[in-house]
Formats: sequence, structure tokens, C-alpha cells
Amino acid sequence: MTLSGITQRLSHQRTRPPYPNCFTSGVTDSLADALIGIVGSAHVLTGPDMCAPYETDWTRRFSGRSRLVVRPGDAGQVAAIIVACADAGARVVPQGGNTGLVGGGVPRDGEVLVSLRRLEDVADADPVAARLVAGAGATLASVQHTARAAGLAVGVDLASRDSATIGGMIATNAGGIHVIRYGPMRAQVLGVEAVLADGSTLSLLDGPLHSSAGYDLTGLLAGSEGTLAIITRAALRLVPEPTDRAVALIGASDTADAMALAAAARALPSLDAIELFHDSGLALVRSYSGLAAPLERDWPAYLLVECAGSGGTFDELSAFLTGTGADRDIAVAVDPQERRRLWAYREQHTEAIAAAGIAHKFDVSLPLSRLAGFVAAADARVAAHSPQASTITFGHAGVGNVHINVLGLAPDDAHIDDVVFRVVAEYGGSISAEHGVGTAKRDWLHLTHSAVEIAAMRAVKQAFDPKGMLNPGVLLPAQA
Amino acid sequence: MTLSGITQRLSHQRTRPPYPNCFTSGVTDSLADALIGIVGSAHVLTGPDMCAPYETDWTRRFSGRSRLVVRPGDAGQVAAIIVACADAGARVVPQGGNTGLVGGGVPRDGEVLVSLRRLEDVADADPVAARLVAGAGATLASVQHTARAAGLAVGVDLASRDSATIGGMIATNAGGIHVIRYGPMRAQVLGVEAVLADGSTLSLLDGPLHSSAGYDLTGLLAGSEGTLAIITRAALRLVPEPTDRAVALIGASDTADAMALAAAARALPSLDAIELFHDSGLALVRSYSGLAAPLERDWPAYLLVECAGSGGTFDELSAFLTGTGADRDIAVAVDPQERRRLWAYREQHTEAIAAAGIAHKFDVSLPLSRLAGFVAAADARVAAHSPQASTITFGHAGVGNVHINVLGLAPDDAHIDDVVFRVVAEYGGSISAEHGVGTAKRDWLHLTHSAVEIAAMRAVKQAFDPKGMLNPGVLLPAQA
Repeated sequence: MTLSGITQRLSHQRTRPPYPNCFTSGVTDSLADALIGIVGSAHVLTGPDMCAPYETDWTRRFSGRSRLVVRPGDAGQVAAIIVACADAGARVVPQGGNTGLVGGGVPRDGEVLVSLRRLEDVADADPVAARLVAGAGATLASVQHTARAAGLAVGVDLASRDSATIGGMIATNAGGIHVIRYGPMRAQVLGVEAVLADGSTLSLLDGPLHSSAGYDLTGLLAGSEGTLAIITRAALRLVPEPTDRAVALIGASDTADAMALAAAARALPSLDAIELFHDSGLALVRSYSGLAAPLERDWPAYLLVECAGSGGTFDELSAFLTGTGADRDIAVAVDPQERRRLWAYREQHTEAIAAAGIAHKFDVSLPLSRLAGFVAAADARVAAHSPQASTITFGHAGVGNVHINVLGLAPDDAHIDDVVFRVVAEYGGSISAEHGVGTAKRDWLHLTHSAVEIAAMRAVKQAFDPKGMLNPGVLLPAQA
Repeated sequence: MTLSGITQRLSHQRTRPPYPNCFTSGVTDSLADALIGIVGSAHVLTGPDMCAPYETDWTRRFSGRSRLVVRPGDAGQVAAIIVACADAGARVVPQGGNTGLVGGGVPRDGEVLVSLRRLEDVADADPVAARLVAGAGATLASVQHTARAAGLAVGVDLASRDSATIGGMIATNAGGIHVIRYGPMRAQVLGVEAVLADGSTLSLLDGPLHSSAGYDLTGLLAGSEGTLAIITRAALRLVPEPTDRAVALIGASDTADAMALAAAARALPSLDAIELFHDSGLALVRSYSGLAAPLERDWPAYLLVECAGSGGTFDELSAFLTGTGADRDIAVAVDPQERRRLWAYREQHTEAIAAAGIAHKFDVSLPLSRLAGFVAAADARVAAHSPQASTITFGHAGVGNVHINVLGLAPDDAHIDDVVFRVVAEYGGSISAEHGVGTAKRDWLHLTHSAVEIAAMRAVKQAFDPKGMLNPGVLLPAQA
């Protein structure tokens, strides 16, 4: 993927402060010494050259200085690091594959950056229980590889699978195209091992599939973005690896028509994905890729529906399509190459948009019944904000998650976030569907979360991290 | 169902203390006056005759005195009640349909009992989003009725559907036979409305299906057994109502053989239930019901597998059964009456056991790969405890949830709980699969939950309810 569009957008980029408390000639850092005693000198990185790769996220939108980077090799070392940092009054930013999109995994203000990537072990899948235990630093791709060896799959898949780590995906409650079938990352996690702010270790890996004994701490840590604990390992449920797939691309007269089709498709037993895009996005994709028009006619909106299972998906999808109306313009694919061709119209949106200019990007979700109204309102509100702006919307429409891309604005437009998030709030949506809140969105959390809800979240934060040492400045709004 | 077995078991029954602070001649209760001001005099019940129906659970195992019973009509009244109780220093026990099984919904020590049954409104289902909003006091049956009118169903079903309320089912994270397909109650809840201990109201009903913006407060309140907040309303996801079902009953050579079949069945796309029982339970059922033997031969264990969908379930189940081996002894049913007949062997276990004597009952769950070992070990350990004891085990084996019934012991046997829960802990299980912890199991929570986990739960409790006014004595162990 070309990052030209994203990397040129600098509106959120912070000024990089000088390195805080790091080794410079003649200055010693007793915390660094303590950490070297825990993980060895090879895994405590200090100074700009060593730390830089960890201090800027992959989009280059978010960047900050760390005091140092420490790379533990197991949960025991993570616990010792937390104790040492607490003793030194240092704050901590946990980091996985650094593929986050909301600035939640890079330092802000001289924190100790704890990279979990060395916790990359993946145990063989248990085929009876359809589960697997992986270290927080294991990439999604490596877990998928191990699952596949047992004829199973992970319920969440992402384009960044080769870099994104299991710990980061749990911490951000990552989503993707299969949320409609299997739920987001939280729904894949049977239990976590996590180090708490007092250095104690919560071990919830070995439980049964189903329990009603006490608060759901695993579910609470999923999506907490490193603010409550540092996840070091997770037991994941696995799902059957489909052996049979069928995809349909359907022309729709508008977003509402597409969402009506989506509502009907949601009842398909083998449903694996429902994706939405529009004529505006398709035009960019075709211009970028040279692909032919996907259907006989051009349509204002397009819905892609995929079924996956162990057989019969073409029949199931065909029966559904027959029921959608006689004059529908539809392409159906079963053959892998043909399926990839239909998916390309949706999947090439990110690259095509990046090639078209500097996009302001928003990952949001809406109640299904209000999504079509939201898309129209967001278009109108963005146009009112700037006549030069155009909006490309696509995404996981089956669960109400769309990605809004605004082209034609200055990279440093300071108001567009506010414009879009206010429309999201008006339509009862969420300002983050699958990326988390991070530092990028926390100032807008109050638009969609009541004061009571934010107060309850603050109480939870206080309960787990009374000194505020874990990922400060992430998720919760700054206090007045 | 006859309750003779259960109601004679009095080992947990507490001595009923005299009525605390209730209206007796000449004594006034200023809290009662305040509550009458909130809900009206018809809905504040005082004195033994009025309160008694709320003070003993349906099994009659758990019972205690309340200060009074208050029956709010909406969330605003619940909030006002909480504030009045806080002002008066009174503690509160929330109660739904009073169908709990672990003593979590009856008073212990003169608390104010808040009955949520009047919050019974059920809004029409939203067929687009496949969701529905119901009051905490709505019975499962009334919600199922409303869902069915939209061609949909609730993902959890229970035998107590006519009495069990949505609020109580969420609070205990109730399970049932469909957990294997749709997960427990927590997985059905899209959002809750709940009154917190400070009288503020958390309103999480209207969000999108999918969000990664902040801590999962709804998931945390699900399964918290009224100790963190009082749930007043919930948005539930709905699932397709199946129109086509097929059931198979399969003879197995032992529990391990049945669990191997269960592991294979878990991959069936239309799988709706996997239930286990044994020869010992079948003998009681046949003796009680007069039913004929279900299969050609007698087997040590039996697995019931049901598929449900919109078509093709017989073919799907048949293909699975063909793969289970040539000499399997199997009965398959598609016709509703025949399906009911096969289900009867499993469903009549509760009544047949009650008819056979006074059973000590345990709802537990195990990792799938250790369930067979656990069943054998529990049998042996119970027999060692008392040569007169016999153990009947059955349940939702597909998710590792079994119900252990011990017959032949004195009703007041004080040690059997400890015997069984210690085996559960040895085999990595949970002491509560689908009933909650309540007052009945909290003294054993430490067997399966580490000190770190219990401390984290205490911190959460402290965050939500610093004065300990909500359902005291439930879920968390007494502090040393």
C-alpha cells in the first residue's frame, strides 16, 4: 500500500520534544540500569537512533519521544519492568506491531515504551476446544498459520496481518470484514494474561469456554487500549476454516437500497462479509487500477456479499439473490480468481484514495437503520464545510461500520474532525468502530458518551491504575 | 416440575431473622415514607405477609428478611430509590423473576429489596438491526413473543422463560442449550440502561452494533449479579428464528467418546445444541417417565446433537453422522413429535432426579479436553466421600457445561460442595457455568480465581459501589 496520502497528512503530528532523561554523555539513568538488569542490555534501547523506529507509528501521523524502549521476553519481565517504572515514577506506553491508527501506541511525553514484540510464541492449536494460546507480540499472520495447520481459522482478519500483533488487536478491539460473522477481537478472546499496574499478573488463559463466575475482566481489558493493564498473552477461540466461498456484487439505487439488501443478507447462515461502496469510490478505484466496470450498468451504491462454509454457499447466495428482485444487476463469483476480482473493487479503495490526494480518514459506526441517513448528512456537512471537499465512504456495512475519507481539504484542516464526529453523534453512532480512541479521538468522546459513562470509565481506570502510569493520555478525555 | 428434591435440601437455608426496621405498631420508617413518595404506597411493601413472596427464592433454598420491598415503575424511580437508600444508609438487593439458583436475588440481612418486575415493557423488534429493547422486568417469554412477531428469536432460552426476567438473566449471564451457537446472555446484550450506586443512570441502549470507543461497560455489568449497578433496560440482539430442525441421539462408549463426537459436531454450521447424558441418568428418566429405550442398545453415554436453520439441516446432520463411524447406534428425528421424544430423554433429567431423592446440584464448566476426566474424577471423589452417594451428570457438553447431581446424601451434608468444587478446580474448570456465584458459591471462588483476579474484581466493585450498598454478600468472597 502506498502511504503517500496518509503520510502527508500531518495535522495530528506532534512537535517532537528533545529526548527526556535518556543517556547522553555523562548522564546516567538509574531506571535504565534497573531495566537492563531485568531484560539485558540488548533489550533496553536509548537515544534517538535506537528509539526512533518505535516512536512514530506506521502512518507517520503520530510521533513522540520516549525515555527509552524496553523489550521484555516474557510476562515475568513485563511485571518486573512495571514495578521498576512505578518505583521510578515513570509512565509506560505498551506497543505491539505499531500498526495502530489513533496514536495509542506511540509515546507522547517521555514515557517508557514497552515493546511486546518478543512475546511472539504461538502454541499449537487445541483442535478439541478450537482454541490457541499466543503471546501478545505474535503477529496475526503467525497465529493464522498455526490455526490453519489444525484446519481452523482466527475469527478476525486484517490487511495488516503481517505486522499487527495479537496484544494490540485485543487492546484496540480490532474489527475487519468478518465482524458480521464472528464479532470483533473481544469476541475471539477466551482469556488473557496481563500485567496490572501494581506489577501483579492476571492469568485467565486456562478457563473453560463458558463461565458465569465473576466479572468479565478479559472482556474489560479487550478494547482498553493499554490503559488498564499490559496484555502479555491470550487464549483465542478458533473457527472453522471455510473450504467453499461465493461472492456477489450487487448494484443498488442508493445507500438506503444497499442497506435494505444488507439487512436481508444478514440472515444468511453462511454469511461471511457485507461490504458497501459507492460510485465515487468505484470511479477512483477504476481510474487507479484500470479495472473494467464490475456490472452491466453503473450504480450509485454497491453491496458485496460473501458466504463461506463447507459447501453449498453458491446455492445459498443464489437463493438470496433471487429474492432481491428481478431487475437486479449482479455479478456472482465462485472461482478464486473471479472472487478476487470482485473483492478488488472494494479492497483497492484505500490505495486509490491515497493516490488521489491527502485524505482525512474516519472510522465510525452507526445504527444500521440510520446509516444511509448518516452518509447523506456527512456528505452534505463536509460540502458545507468546504466546497472543494469530496467524501468517499465505504466499509463493513453489515455491522454499520463505515470509513469516511474526505479529499480536497488542506492536510492541516483543523475543523474537519469536529464536523464529521458531530454528524456521527447526531445519528447515534460511535466515533470509533474498530481502531480505538487513542490520542486522536479522545477529545470527541464526550459527543457520543455521556458524562455518566465517562465518569464510570474514569472510575474503572482509577481502580486499575490509580497512579495513571499506563498509557497516559489515551482513550479518556483530558480532565477539565 | 416437582420441587420436592430441591426444596427438601436445606443445607444453605439461613435462619430467618426477625423483620428489621419494618412497620410494626407505633414504629415509623422514614425511608419507607421517602420511597412511598417515589413509587406510591401501593408499591412499598412492608411486614412479613407482604414481603414474604420476595424473600424466598423459587427453590426455597435461599431466604432472608428484607427491610421492605419497593417496586419501581421506571428507571427514574429506581434512581430515586437508590439515592433515598444511600441517604438512609440502607443496602439494596435487586430482584427480577426470583428464578436464580445461587441465592443472589433474595435479601440476607434487612436490605431493601428492589423488585424490577414492573419494568416489563418490550418495544417492537427492529427487523433491520435485528434488535429489541426490553425492560429489566420483562420475562424471557414476553421478549421471545415480540421477537417471533418479527420472525426473529432470542439467542438464549431457558426452562424458566415464563418467570425469568431479562434483567436477571443479564445480571447472572444466563446460559442454556444455545450457548454453543450464540454464546451466553452477555453475548446477546448490545447495551444496557443501568442505575449506578450514586443514583446516576448509564444509558447505553442506542449505540451501533459495533464500537471500539472506550471500556465495555455493558459487558462488565453482564454477569455482575447486581453488585455494580441495577440494570433497568437492555437492547438485545436477535437471531433468525429457525424453520427447519434435525436432532440426533448417538450412543457413546464413554464420556470421552461422547466428547470426541461433540468436538467433531462443533464444526457443523447449523449446530444448535450439543447435550450429554449417561446411562445412570437415562435409567432414572425411563423409570420416571416410562419412556422406551431410545436406541437399539444401551450405552454408557449419550450425545444429543441438534441442527437448526432455514433448510438442509437433516442433510447436514446426516453427513456428520455418516462420518462418525459405521457401527454407531443412532436415532435421528426431523418430525416435531419425534424430536420432542428424543429431547425428552435429556430434558426429563431434572424431574426424574428430583423424584429419585434429594439431590445436591452443581452447575460447573470444564475445558472441553478435560471434561471426561473430570466426570470420572468427580464420580470417584463423591463415592469416596460417601459410599451411599451416586452422581448423575448431564448438560451442555458442547461448551463444557455440566450439571452434577449427587443423590444419596443427607440434605444437610456440609462437605459435598467442597468435594465437588475442589475437583472442578483441579480440572481447570469454573464453579459456575450459567447460574452465577451468588451467596451460594462465593466461599469457593478462590479455588478457581487467583488472589490477583479477586483483588481486581474487588477494585472494580469499589469503583462502582464504594459504600458496598448494592447486593452485599453476593459474588465476592467475604474479606478476611
